[in-house]
Amino acid sequence: MQRFPNPLLDGYRNFMNGRYADARDRYRQLAENGQSPHTLVIACSDSRAAPELIFDAGPGELFVIRNVANMVPPYEPDGHFHSTSAALEFAVQVLKVSDIVVMGHGRCGGIRSALDPNAEPLSPGDFIGRWMSLVKPAAEQIQSNDVMTAAERQTALERVSIRNSINNLRSFPDIKALEEAGKIHLHGAWFDISTGELWVMDAETRDFIRPEI
Amino acid sequence: MQRFPNPLLDGYRNFMNGRYADARDRYRQLAENGQSPHTLVIACSDSRAAPELIFDAGPGELFVIRNVANMVPPYEPDGHFHSTSAALEFAVQVLKVSDIVVMGHGRCGGIRSALDPNAEPLSPGDFIGRWMSLVKPAAEQIQSNDVMTAAERQTALERVSIRNSINNLRSFPDIKALEEAGKIHLHGAWFDISTGELWVMDAETRDFIRPEI
Amino acid sequence: MQRFPNPLLDGYRNFMNGRYADARDRYRQLAENGQSPHTLVIACSDSRAAPELIFDAGPGELFVIRNVANMVPPYEPDGHFHSTSAALEFAVQVLKVSDIVVMGHGRCGGIRSALDPNAEPLSPGDFIGRWMSLVKPAAEQIQSNDVMTAAERQTALERVSIRNSINNLRSFPDIKALEEAGKIHLHGAWFDISTGELWVMDAETRDFIRPEI
Amino acid sequence: MQRFPNPLLDGYRNFMNGRYADARDRYRQLAENGQSPHTLVIACSDSRAAPELIFDAGPGELFVIRNVANMVPPYEPDGHFHSTSAALEFAVQVLKVSDIVVMGHGRCGGIRSALDPNAEPLSPGDFIGRWMSLVKPAAEQIQSNDVMTAAERQTALERVSIRNSINNLRSFPDIKALEEAGKIHLHGAWFDISTGELWVMDAETRDFIRPEI
Repeated sequence: MQRFPNPLLDGYRNFMNGRYADARDRYRQLAENGQSPHTLVIACSDSRAAPELIFDAGPGELFVIRNVANMVPPYEPDGHFHSTSAALEFAVQVLKVSDIVVMGHGRCGGIRSALDPNAEPLSPGDFIGRWMSLVKPAAEQIQSNDVMTAAERQTALERVSIRNSINNLRSFPDIKALEEAGKIHLHGAWFDISTGELWVMDAETRDFIRPEI
Repeated sequence: MQRFPNPLLDGYRNFMNGRYADARDRYRQLAENGQSPHTLVIACSDSRAAPELIFDAGPGELFVIRNVANMVPPYEPDGHFHSTSAALEFAVQVLKVSDIVVMGHGRCGGIRSALDPNAEPLSPGDFIGRWMSLVKPAAEQIQSNDVMTAAERQTALERVSIRNSINNLRSFPDIKALEEAGKIHLHGAWFDISTGELWVMDAETRDFIRPEI
Repeated sequence: MQRFPNPLLDGYRNFMNGRYADARDRYRQLAENGQSPHTLVIACSDSRAAPELIFDAGPGELFVIRNVANMVPPYEPDGHFHSTSAALEFAVQVLKVSDIVVMGHGRCGGIRSALDPNAEPLSPGDFIGRWMSLVKPAAEQIQSNDVMTAAERQTALERVSIRNSINNLRSFPDIKALEEAGKIHLHGAWFDISTGELWVMDAETRDFIRPEI
Repeated sequence: MQRFPNPLLDGYRNFMNGRYADARDRYRQLAENGQSPHTLVIACSDSRAAPELIFDAGPGELFVIRNVANMVPPYEPDGHFHSTSAALEFAVQVLKVSDIVVMGHGRCGGIRSALDPNAEPLSPGDFIGRWMSLVKPAAEQIQSNDVMTAAERQTALERVSIRNSINNLRSFPDIKALEEAGKIHLHGAWFDISTGELWVMDAETRDFIRPEI
């Protein structure tokens, strides 16, 4: 019989003997009372950028959407399947989170591909190509800038894309209304995989700065 | 100025003094060499079911998609934005993962809403309703069964939905081909939030059983 | 001469040198004073699900009814021979047990046959067919569900059948009255032969959950 | 919430740490391959006479019917629910056991009530009265014998009843045929709760004798 991946089983054993053993009551409570996470994090699928690790979050704290390049598409009530919009709706309307964090990170493969002028469709459906076209206008502007290095262009687009996603969050009528009523707060964050640095977006200037911690 | 959520800053401080301090070289290496995760995990956005915690996974190990009810839609190369399909494509074509795990969990709010005959649309776009309609046929069959309790119906649908998603993974031509060539392996898993139990899908019977650990 | 089965004689020798030797006084006392078991267990005849083993019960503790699929028929005071109802009456009226446990188990052959749409009568009397018709309405509902696997349907019916039997216990006027007076407690339990797990029925939700032990 | 009986949970804990831990592979095998018990034991529901204890039997060895006074009714293919006949049919036709043991025991409450000339119906349905009427003709003969003590009369009826049940087994056409073909063997046994003595029925004389062990 095809076996479940061993590294996952080994990890699960550690979980049961470690974190779960320590937090048995917390898990039971969360199961009985349901979740009430304070924050929705929209993060990248990248294996190096798990929000639970970076924010040292335990069970029940973060509701998490993960897709390529931690993007939010604009509001499109067209009857199609919208994975990210559905999760957004659930977090906002059902769980009533008070904070939404769009968290990007350095060396993001999705962003890199959006900046690659020679990128070929990966498949006839070209799901990645379509998905990354969400940042295409910004990518084209940045691509044409030849005084910045490739790495600088990438970091720049990673941050521009976070701001794009925050703009798109505001295209959802209910999020916009809740934000105006002061009931929900939108944040941007960017994580540097190499140095471990966390940068957060200043709400007014929309610059990324290192928070005091 | 609107402040970045304090619980996240506190958690980040712990991360820097703990896990990052211990794994500084690993993070640096992952940044320089890029990620090469062995496994793609498609998990629920639920705050109680983070795969990194449950599989005690460190940076670089798991590429993770998270949406409501950890679902994979069928292959639809229609030019729309497909968050989940794009991430799938990236994991399979670019990162060439060897394993894909669809991981569901108990007490899933999305699944519960799919079983609720009186569920009202949450918004004009009804993103959740549309998204959960991916399991509608199965939900209707299970809903009509009144000898099982509500909780039993929910567990049943959580597992049926994992099998559905695995079927949908096979609707992607490249995944189907790679699986037939023995280059990619599809797995199902289900996590019990209350007891911490992990159940995995037997590849042949498609039943969920507790693995030896 | 036809000999008594050797495995039983060997086992009896172990009993005399082991458990009986250790509990000689207990057996003598039980013989003199009569039994006063606290609990009636209605269990399956299955060779893998003996309640004395699973509950590590010594002599005098459990009054036990065992039939196929651990079922209780509804109250039928019709003057026929009722093996199970007679034993129930004895346990409740004569022994005055305080607890009744209906204990099912996984991979029950009787339940499997109830779910088999092609099952042929085993004999002209078709005793098994008749007996298993006690769960026929539930079996038909579950049979028609083709999104659950065969094993899932079986587990579901095993648990539904336990609830059915508990309902049938309440059709006995004296049991109903004693329960309402708080003098008798009805429980459901389900044993997983493969993993050794015991699940017990929550009295309110009627779900099966793993007890803390 | 109404709690599952503590003595059972305590016993289950012992089971998991003891017998199950030692026989984990055996249980798993039995789950996967199904049961194939060599012997059907028809025993009394009495809490002091569990066949698994007396024959030191592990999981998978004995298929067990337990009712009051370990009786087999005559073959009655009348379309009613027959708990004992259904279990017999399952053991013989499906599991194809090679041996059937009717095991009585001393100080049996059911037999005592059958010998009590003043016994009142316990309920309008009088399930016990009806059930014990299976030995009524023999009971009346023995009752009228006033040179034997009460205890002697009881032991006598306990043994007569075992022979009755073996006769009734032979009223089932398939059991009769299998016995004549040498494919199934019928045995009687009687257990003395007080002394732990096991007596077995000599197949020819039908006397109860102590086997050499």
